[in-house]
Amino acid sequence: MQKPSLPKGTRDFGPAQMARRNYILDTIKDAFQLFGYHQIETPAMENLNTLTGKYGDEGDQLLFKILNSGDFLKNVSQADLEKGYKSTLTKVSEKGLRYDLTVPFARFVVMNRNELTFPFKRFQIQPVWRADRPQKGRYREFYQCDADVVGTDSLVCEAEIILMIRRVFSKLKLQDYSIKLNNRKILTGISEAIGEAGKEGPLCVAIDKLDKIGWDSVKDELKTREFSDSAIDKLAPLVSLQAGITSKLEFLKSFLADSETGLKGVQELEEVIEILRLMGENLEYVDFDLMLARGLSYYTGAIFEVKVNNASIGSVSGGGRYDNLTGVFGLSGVSGVGFSFGVDRLYDVLEELKLFPEESVQSTKLLLTHFDQTGMNYALGTLRFFREAGIKAEIYPDKAKMKKQLDFAVKKGIPYIGICGDDEIASKTIALKNLDSGEQENVSIEEALRKLS
Amino acid sequence: MQKPSLPKGTRDFGPAQMARRNYILDTIKDAFQLFGYHQIETPAMENLNTLTGKYGDEGDQLLFKILNSGDFLKNVSQADLEKGYKSTLTKVSEKGLRYDLTVPFARFVVMNRNELTFPFKRFQIQPVWRADRPQKGRYREFYQCDADVVGTDSLVCEAEIILMIRRVFSKLKLQDYSIKLNNRKILTGISEAIGEAGKEGPLCVAIDKLDKIGWDSVKDELKTREFSDSAIDKLAPLVSLQAGITSKLEFLKSFLADSETGLKGVQELEEVIEILRLMGENLEYVDFDLMLARGLSYYTGAIFEVKVNNASIGSVSGGGRYDNLTGVFGLSGVSGVGFSFGVDRLYDVLEELKLFPEESVQSTKLLLTHFDQTGMNYALGTLRFFREAGIKAEIYPDKAKMKKQLDFAVKKGIPYIGICGDDEIASKTIALKNLDSGEQENVSIEEALRKLS
Repeated sequence: MQKPSLPKGTRDFGPAQMARRNYILDTIKDAFQLFGYHQIETPAMENLNTLTGKYGDEGDQLLFKILNSGDFLKNVSQADLEKGYKSTLTKVSEKGLRYDLTVPFARFVVMNRNELTFPFKRFQIQPVWRADRPQKGRYREFYQCDADVVGTDSLVCEAEIILMIRRVFSKLKLQDYSIKLNNRKILTGISEAIGEAGKEGPLCVAIDKLDKIGWDSVKDELKTREFSDSAIDKLAPLVSLQAGITSKLEFLKSFLADSETGLKGVQELEEVIEILRLMGENLEYVDFDLMLARGLSYYTGAIFEVKVNNASIGSVSGGGRYDNLTGVFGLSGVSGVGFSFGVDRLYDVLEELKLFPEESVQSTKLLLTHFDQTGMNYALGTLRFFREAGIKAEIYPDKAKMKKQLDFAVKKGIPYIGICGDDEIASKTIALKNLDSGEQENVSIEEALRKLS
Repeated sequence: MQKPSLPKGTRDFGPAQMARRNYILDTIKDAFQLFGYHQIETPAMENLNTLTGKYGDEGDQLLFKILNSGDFLKNVSQADLEKGYKSTLTKVSEKGLRYDLTVPFARFVVMNRNELTFPFKRFQIQPVWRADRPQKGRYREFYQCDADVVGTDSLVCEAEIILMIRRVFSKLKLQDYSIKLNNRKILTGISEAIGEAGKEGPLCVAIDKLDKIGWDSVKDELKTREFSDSAIDKLAPLVSLQAGITSKLEFLKSFLADSETGLKGVQELEEVIEILRLMGENLEYVDFDLMLARGLSYYTGAIFEVKVNNASIGSVSGGGRYDNLTGVFGLSGVSGVGFSFGVDRLYDVLEELKLFPEESVQSTKLLLTHFDQTGMNYALGTLRFFREAGIKAEIYPDKAKMKKQLDFAVKKGIPYIGICGDDEIASKTIALKNLDSGEQENVSIEEALRKLS
């Protein structure tokens, strides 16, 4: 007899967690759909040649590979084995588990390009797998929740992403947060303006750490990456720049006066702000942070990141615009913009701030309880009125002591019980008890329906 | 540049399919929750020792195994290789993809037995993977949708499963179907009554084919399985028995008079019927089919199966009671009853019968269109009123010819466009056009909100 266990880095979601996760995911889905995004799903397994080479060497190592079915050794020669596991790998495995939702989405767009209506707005909420070393908050299986629109370079999309984030946060009752906004072209312009043209890559990597390690350490890192002292001096005023959006933009227009790309970035950012204004959006949540870099190298335009200010977990959402999502699969010119919500992180934030509404954890609203067969029969006959009215209701299915039935209700988080005793049967009522307040009253079925609706 | 493809037996779900699948799944989820069932999720990957030996030899072959990370050959000796792939397997793979939702559920119950509230009602909707040969309608990745209640032998659970099926079918507008009901104990009793005690296994396998191959062929199969001629003669009247539930039960009471188990089965079935009556249930959909066997060997009580009569696909749901779900993981005495919906099959049935409502495929309700920047700005300012009212609305994000914007709406299945031209801007209206009827009228935003709500 074996004692069962879970693979390292994986987890079950029990009823209470699932209810809370669904509360978050349903809120996100509603917002996506309100803005015309469509859900898609792709298979967990992809051909290895779809996945490999897309996430760097480290990513390739972290892919979960699936062993070929049947005699997986049949194509493996002694010579392969002697060359080691890397040479053997392609002989024993042809498929892997998806590592993110972006590459499968790119594959989907390429394979379905003749059927899709562009601009194509899609969202996707599915698990991904990474053979990372498990640690607190890092799992080998976790959900990603992505939304992208491809086939347009309209900056309306950027503005709408900000609106969707705002809507989700407002529905989740999150109030103290900021949406940091920048543009990769501005970062390119800055590297030109400080005399280090072409080095926006290392510049981004270094300033990405500003929040964590501070300006002095970033300076050290820039020196290590062979930025000149004069470049670093020129960068300093940008790092310490404290001003409103409009002032920052004015400052940049002169700072980037000689960089065509930089000015394009400023113009794009201005346009996003203008669209937000046209759409009636309150801009107090938008923080133009010209030190926001975001690591991923494929971003080419707007980038954004959302931080909850009053929680210990920082970034819960982020994204950006890219120019060439599907080039690797032979379809060029598909630009788009996308972002994702960190579902696990949002969960932790809502828990920390106690923002999960009670309804998100309680499932059943009413448990009918009974003392004997007569009461049970009466309860059975009564149940459907509640269910037909859409009230989640159950009956304790066994004959049991009232205490046991009550315990069941309390443990399951059911707020009301409807006691079906002889008096209630005689008067065609139930004794409706609020388990929280302890209040109890005899009510007709109609009254109970009204109270619980 | 590679041409991307999907692994054999897997598929993408595009926007239209997803919307329809969600329509089905949301309907099922609502019913489960109305009856107090809670959703859980388990990881895609399970340890191989959780999975192997649970599905027979064939099942073990069909498990997708995951290659160990890093140097997967490090524990493999020359001797292992010479013994063949079966000896090597356990050295290169420790995890597999789940094959169904039942075994992971059993593992979940055992691992969480101290935290769960029993009777525990759970549902689970997740993909499973099988390395079957792909063919029409058979995939290597497909969703299962299971509901089980464990920790009680109350027959109220059986009755409620029938009610949940009824509720789902009624919501899906499926009307011509039957819920076939039987009890394994009755089949055991029958094998005793015909003088072939202990042979209910082969009896079930043979009569399970009655629908497909007919009585004459089933007789041949029973002979091959060494049922005596007299046993087969005794079985014949049961096979041809045409009668109402009550008459069938009366017939069985005398037929099974000498079988304690058989009579217990009859009694359980009578009780389920009685509970359904108490619950106000119309019994015309319930068909007591004493030739219903269902292949799975672990059923010990009620078994049921749902057939849609006016569609080419037969069974879309089924299940039964079992005595010992978790015994294999060292926890005995957990009895329960469960069933599942075949989501792919329900999808095909609804498509065949044209029962998908229009709303299930349309996402956005209104597209705002524009002729120029002024119109676009006006549309941008107007959008939020629709979204705040919960009306799914979009703007065509690029400046484009009206025809292109119209095409976009038609292809995306958007039923209304709101044209934002100079006249509309001057009168603070939109020209609301129903793309189906062609009707168009100038309306204020408030009127548009009313019409689209």
